[in-house]
Amino acid sequence: MFFQKRHPPAGSRPGTLVIPETAHPPVIRVIDYTVDRVEETEIHDVEELTRFVDSDSVTWIDVHGMGDETLIRRIGEIFALHALALEDAVNVPQRPKTELYERCNLYITRMTRLGDGANVEVEQLSIFLGSGWVLTLQEKPGDIFDPIRARIRAGLGPMRRSGADYLAYALIDMVIDGYYPVIEELGEHLERLEETTLSHDEPQLLAQIYDAKRQLLELRRAVWPQRDAINSMIRDENPFVGETVRVYLRDVYDHAVQVIDITETYRELAGSLMDLYLSTVSQRTNDVMKVLTIMASIFIPLTFMAGIYGMNFEHMPELGQRWAYPLLLSLMGLIGMGMIVFFWRKGWIGPKAKTLAAPRGSSR
Amino acid sequence: MFFQKRHPPAGSRPGTLVIPETAHPPVIRVIDYTVDRVEETEIHDVEELTRFVDSDSVTWIDVHGMGDETLIRRIGEIFALHALALEDAVNVPQRPKTELYERCNLYITRMTRLGDGANVEVEQLSIFLGSGWVLTLQEKPGDIFDPIRARIRAGLGPMRRSGADYLAYALIDMVIDGYYPVIEELGEHLERLEETTLSHDEPQLLAQIYDAKRQLLELRRAVWPQRDAINSMIRDENPFVGETVRVYLRDVYDHAVQVIDITETYRELAGSLMDLYLSTVSQRTNDVMKVLTIMASIFIPLTFMAGIYGMNFEHMPELGQRWAYPLLLSLMGLIGMGMIVFFWRKGWIGPKAKTLAAPRGSSR
Amino acid sequence: MFFQKRHPPAGSRPGTLVIPETAHPPVIRVIDYTVDRVEETEIHDVEELTRFVDSDSVTWIDVHGMGDETLIRRIGEIFALHALALEDAVNVPQRPKTELYERCNLYITRMTRLGDGANVEVEQLSIFLGSGWVLTLQEKPGDIFDPIRARIRAGLGPMRRSGADYLAYALIDMVIDGYYPVIEELGEHLERLEETTLSHDEPQLLAQIYDAKRQLLELRRAVWPQRDAINSMIRDENPFVGETVRVYLRDVYDHAVQVIDITETYRELAGSLMDLYLSTVSQRTNDVMKVLTIMASIFIPLTFMAGIYGMNFEHMPELGQRWAYPLLLSLMGLIGMGMIVFFWRKGWIGPKAKTLAAPRGSSR
Amino acid sequence: MFFQKRHPPAGSRPGTLVIPETAHPPVIRVIDYTVDRVEETEIHDVEELTRFVDSDSVTWIDVHGMGDETLIRRIGEIFALHALALEDAVNVPQRPKTELYERCNLYITRMTRLGDGANVEVEQLSIFLGSGWVLTLQEKPGDIFDPIRARIRAGLGPMRRSGADYLAYALIDMVIDGYYPVIEELGEHLERLEETTLSHDEPQLLAQIYDAKRQLLELRRAVWPQRDAINSMIRDENPFVGETVRVYLRDVYDHAVQVIDITETYRELAGSLMDLYLSTVSQRTNDVMKVLTIMASIFIPLTFMAGIYGMNFEHMPELGQRWAYPLLLSLMGLIGMGMIVFFWRKGWIGPKAKTLAAPRGSSR
Amino acid sequence: MFFQKRHPPAGSRPGTLVIPETAHPPVIRVIDYTVDRVEETEIHDVEELTRFVDSDSVTWIDVHGMGDETLIRRIGEIFALHALALEDAVNVPQRPKTELYERCNLYITRMTRLGDGANVEVEQLSIFLGSGWVLTLQEKPGDIFDPIRARIRAGLGPMRRSGADYLAYALIDMVIDGYYPVIEELGEHLERLEETTLSHDEPQLLAQIYDAKRQLLELRRAVWPQRDAINSMIRDENPFVGETVRVYLRDVYDHAVQVIDITETYRELAGSLMDLYLSTVSQRTNDVMKVLTIMASIFIPLTFMAGIYGMNFEHMPELGQRWAYPLLLSLMGLIGMGMIVFFWRKGWIGPKAKTLAAPRGSSR
Repeated sequence: MFFQKRHPPAGSRPGTLVIPETAHPPVIRVIDYTVDRVEETEIHDVEELTRFVDSDSVTWIDVHGMGDETLIRRIGEIFALHALALEDAVNVPQRPKTELYERCNLYITRMTRLGDGANVEVEQLSIFLGSGWVLTLQEKPGDIFDPIRARIRAGLGPMRRSGADYLAYALIDMVIDGYYPVIEELGEHLERLEETTLSHDEPQLLAQIYDAKRQLLELRRAVWPQRDAINSMIRDENPFVGETVRVYLRDVYDHAVQVIDITETYRELAGSLMDLYLSTVSQRTNDVMKVLTIMASIFIPLTFMAGIYGMNFEHMPELGQRWAYPLLLSLMGLIGMGMIVFFWRKGWIGPKAKTLAAPRGSSR
Repeated sequence: MFFQKRHPPAGSRPGTLVIPETAHPPVIRVIDYTVDRVEETEIHDVEELTRFVDSDSVTWIDVHGMGDETLIRRIGEIFALHALALEDAVNVPQRPKTELYERCNLYITRMTRLGDGANVEVEQLSIFLGSGWVLTLQEKPGDIFDPIRARIRAGLGPMRRSGADYLAYALIDMVIDGYYPVIEELGEHLERLEETTLSHDEPQLLAQIYDAKRQLLELRRAVWPQRDAINSMIRDENPFVGETVRVYLRDVYDHAVQVIDITETYRELAGSLMDLYLSTVSQRTNDVMKVLTIMASIFIPLTFMAGIYGMNFEHMPELGQRWAYPLLLSLMGLIGMGMIVFFWRKGWIGPKAKTLAAPRGSSR
Repeated sequence: MFFQKRHPPAGSRPGTLVIPETAHPPVIRVIDYTVDRVEETEIHDVEELTRFVDSDSVTWIDVHGMGDETLIRRIGEIFALHALALEDAVNVPQRPKTELYERCNLYITRMTRLGDGANVEVEQLSIFLGSGWVLTLQEKPGDIFDPIRARIRAGLGPMRRSGADYLAYALIDMVIDGYYPVIEELGEHLERLEETTLSHDEPQLLAQIYDAKRQLLELRRAVWPQRDAINSMIRDENPFVGETVRVYLRDVYDHAVQVIDITETYRELAGSLMDLYLSTVSQRTNDVMKVLTIMASIFIPLTFMAGIYGMNFEHMPELGQRWAYPLLLSLMGLIGMGMIVFFWRKGWIGPKAKTLAAPRGSSR
Repeated sequence: MFFQKRHPPAGSRPGTLVIPETAHPPVIRVIDYTVDRVEETEIHDVEELTRFVDSDSVTWIDVHGMGDETLIRRIGEIFALHALALEDAVNVPQRPKTELYERCNLYITRMTRLGDGANVEVEQLSIFLGSGWVLTLQEKPGDIFDPIRARIRAGLGPMRRSGADYLAYALIDMVIDGYYPVIEELGEHLERLEETTLSHDEPQLLAQIYDAKRQLLELRRAVWPQRDAINSMIRDENPFVGETVRVYLRDVYDHAVQVIDITETYRELAGSLMDLYLSTVSQRTNDVMKVLTIMASIFIPLTFMAGIYGMNFEHMPELGQRWAYPLLLSLMGLIGMGMIVFFWRKGWIGPKAKTLAAPRGSSR
Repeated sequence: MFFQKRHPPAGSRPGTLVIPETAHPPVIRVIDYTVDRVEETEIHDVEELTRFVDSDSVTWIDVHGMGDETLIRRIGEIFALHALALEDAVNVPQRPKTELYERCNLYITRMTRLGDGANVEVEQLSIFLGSGWVLTLQEKPGDIFDPIRARIRAGLGPMRRSGADYLAYALIDMVIDGYYPVIEELGEHLERLEETTLSHDEPQLLAQIYDAKRQLLELRRAVWPQRDAINSMIRDENPFVGETVRVYLRDVYDHAVQVIDITETYRELAGSLMDLYLSTVSQRTNDVMKVLTIMASIFIPLTFMAGIYGMNFEHMPELGQRWAYPLLLSLMGLIGMGMIVFFWRKGWIGPKAKTLAAPRGSSR
């Protein structure tokens, strides 16, 4: 889960691609559309791609898997990708960013999906936006873009009427929207943790709070730079992004800022939760100590008194008295009662001695 | 209470409105006024609104409830609202912001009200400001704007003489002013919490401090972006906001900054309160431990001594001595006194042993 | 002590003045001076003020108390104060700021005074600077400006030779200088708290540290915005402030920054003090526990041994032995000594067992 | 490990070089190349360097060791290095920075290497970039640049075809890439620490967490200024760095930002780890206290009861009863059971009483 | 040690000098030099200074002590110092800053010296830089500038050939360089504190860590503003500072930034040390509790069992059995062993029960 960058051996020349043995073989799917028609194909011979470079239609080349360096390099050549751009796309993870090259604009993002058991899966997605084409590159098969494909096929809305920049916007928009379920899940998780912290005494809470904090840090690291990247696509001069799409990107920008806002809020809450846990444990230790102190304070003096009259001295005049035993018992009872009254007054026992078990009933 | 955004299914096309089944049906009220007259109507047929779009009067269209997508969309068409603007207004919560479109200026804010039991109710309010009209959209019926309606009817002050921008300013001003009672309530709550923390030992305090912190975070998240939004309405070029109203907005801006200031101060105080609680509990544990240690240190050695002479050895010469018992008792008394003196000197008992019950009497 | 703003009922029109029933009736004092003469009068009929508006002399109109709305409003009319400016001056507290209007420049500040018992009194002071006049407004009678009046009367220094802007500067300078005794008092208070924290075990320390922190937060909230306000008077175009006075204001600015600097430093120290207290209490609990553990560890096993030979079994061969009792006593002594040696080695008793009572002797 | 700067005696004139007695004698290696040829020589007479200053080829003069002030000064003269630039290179450590002089551009960086046992070795490297030459200066023999030498010799890639600025870029790129293994190692270390914190109770963890925090602070101090330095090489006017190389430097910049990002994330995690440790220890103390309290609460009252009937009063009617002993034993059993039930209900014993030993099994 | 400003009585007119009774009488030393000659004199009649104001040589007027207001004022007149500039120089402490006046540039700094016993002595030094002269003012006799005097006399290096700005630079450079020994001392102090925190249990550590934190805060407050001051001397238009000297000042700027960097790092470390101390104490309390719990858990049940058979019931059949005593002893032994095994397994005793005494042996 911790950071592990796939980087070339130190000192490699720039543009070196690092592809692990276990990488998925690339699957290339192409959707080519104009207002009037949609063509979907799976490409098996990479050279077929050349015909999409300068076509009038909008083409989305979608590559899943990077297990073939020659093929990836050839794609790079066909679309005239800068060596550094290709390296950034392949040697994951890269920090999210946007970078403008002569022939295309690269947007690197991190795509999240809520997997089973609230597991957050994160994967780098590289979106190359050229004139008339969008090339997306990702490592593992499977993505979250089926709704976009459906919209292309359906031909409703502005998608088919717009250019490649609108398609790129739609992809970025989906990626950012994909963060909402994740933060909502994390929010609910924090709420559950808070409730448990206050009512139970479970040590694994600590691990969970720490984990939540770590996930929020990850999230922040993923979203924060995207805010800047989107902003630079809105503000900077960029031949590949039209005015209309910039208005839409402003909307995506707002969402990214909202995600950051909430992430920061949750991060503060997670920090407070850790403090809350510590205070709760301290409070519980205090409660435990009180039980011990009450028990010990009541019985230790009494035991001592019993010990006195358990001594075997020959000359202990009290021992022979008839009233001595009941008197002593009464005295012990009085002392015990006194102690109880003392602790009652201190609020350690009785109605004021609330413990942490169910504290929130009426307080909210 | 945690963040839950109403967002369209991932991959929907931009402008998709998400309206839950349980949404209130929209109620449209219109106040149309010039210097000379005021007309208040409740609109039942949405097409009636068309006549207000280009009228010379100032029109406030006030929509409560969003439970009719067709109607909402039709309103959007009548006033030529951008699809994204409408989406932001409907798919709550949106981050507060201002956004300038061709035909109107959108200001999204969060309206707060102190409900029963110091409960803070927060709702998104979207204010569209066009030329000659203001359109406000909110989810639930009921708002805080009756005083403004009264001012419009009364016709005193600059309201009736001014344009739609003044009306928008008045609404934003009221929203920001609405934060004052909330932070004052929170401030008093913090003060009560502080007092209780120092004098009582109630575990639910923890939950309450944590809660206060969370509310302050919410508040900050609501007000902070409004500062920027108002500032951009003051500084940016904007055909819908006149020079005179910008001076008034500067005043609102100052109030927003003041609210943020106090929120931040309270947030720091809430953080310190958590530390205070922890220190207080530690201090109390210390006090509990002292009681235990004193009791145990006094009586455990004495019990041991009694135990010695409770042994049944045949040859224990002391047992037969007359003076042995009183001597031992005296010795025990001396040891006990010694212990008490020892702890007195250490300041654990006696006048120096102040506990946390009532610490602040003279110290302030 | 917590924030309580006097704000008009929500929805009032801008410029509404909120004056409590208990407000002091206004007392108006005027000092009018040129290089050659000084005239001091107390004004009883507000209309007398009109003659000072356009006079060639410099006039300081000093209003204490706001308990007469008509009068305050009339003053506003005479000096052509903007409705919002007057509202800011009356509805206290306002965030310190400077605001430039057509006919005057408003500077809102917070005046502090060290009262009895190191009590910090804070009051809002509004300084209106017009051409040829300065109008100051404050709520309660009494101020810190007698030295300035003396300087005007004495006619030494540049005061009488300079314009109204110099007078305004002199007032602001005094307000900022008034923070020095307050922070110095707070600094000494922190130093005393630190010393007490390390040497004593007093629970009210917590309340005091928390209080100091709160006062520092208040102070910061009062000074921080003044830095910006002064800076904007130095840098912004402003017809009421001359070049010469801007040089003087730079000096005030430096002082404001110094006050902020020290406030921030003290705030950090107060935060550390809270940590220090917590650590100290933990250390003390540790010391208490050691006493208990030592007592218990020594005597509990011995008591058990005594208990063994206090049993009444008929067949306990040791009981009849002559040497058994002294042997057992010796054994007990040995065990006790062993325990003491064990704890000595652990450093819990003996010279290494320093406690917190007087820790700093040679360490500084 | 703490900061120790080699600075000249206070008041020395600028440009004073401080070379310790133990410094390595300088070894000068030169690689001189054009597209067509590569020449590698070790220089023994410093004057030989003069021929490289204005040659058409690209020359990399690589100096390891500074133990000869005359020689270092002569090198400075040959390449016309500014006295302050040379001082910065020799009096290590200097803060990483870039500085533009008339005849060359100085880039000071910190080179890291993972030594044995995850030991991070850090050394200052100074890169002087002139027109046609790169001069690198470092204190100790040995560097991480062998792959670059290999690339020069091999003549593949753009290296041989490019100028001195490309060589400088390649060196900086390698230095930044050298941080990745270090942060990855630190990340794994943190993960191990986290796991151990949650499952074991080892005091040296504290030292290790503290150490990790310190290393991260060091790292941040090394990388943070390099971000600015690289940025200023990209943005500022600089005759020594061409347009093409600036594109490459953008890539290095991104890597530096990524390293900073991860360092900050780890620093936050290390901070949380310290909190985690504290909470864990508190939780464990709580567990220990429970064991003690349970044992004491069960047996102390029972011991007292036994003590009662161990008293030697002559008139204790129960003592003679046949049923008294078994009755008392039963009563004791009941009381013991009652206590156990009481603690069971409180969740201190039984299945709910999870301790910290293995908390994370299913929770992830 | 805490902040104590010497400020004039509130309301004094600007330029009021505050000189305490105990101030040292001023000693004025002048060094006047050109490339060819050096003249050093001690001035007794202040009027002699007039001849240096417009001379062609460079003059350094060095005033130690301020105990003569007339004389100080006369110096101010001779060099045409602005009243506010003189006030800033005399009413110490002033925040470090640079301020440009018509006739000179004022640089206020804080000079540090490591006194005996690592005591840091801080004093304000005011450097007035005019055309052809430098005037330095300080309160107490003694400074750190002897090496500069030596360099002037020796006539080596650029000092004698350069103007007054170079002299001012040399002074500032020395002041900044003077911070290095201080932070190095503090760094070593922190390292020692860290080691002691981990291996010993000394309460005065707390006071020392707190002290170190305070000193670091002081240091930061001294250096931070100097960074800005130096920067403004480099960047701003300033007739008194030449181009060449600005290059040198860039070097001083870098050093100031480095000092700030390390101060911040140390401040974070000091904060972590406080956490470390707290965790260490908690860990130790935990260790103490374990000893107590083990002792009590083993012997309390056994004592209870012994108590049972110490009862004096007449009908206790076991008492008469031959095997009862050895059986009970064996049982007790078993129970004791069982407890020991239980705690061994829990890791509280035995090889796993490492305590904090010597934790770092192999872990680094």
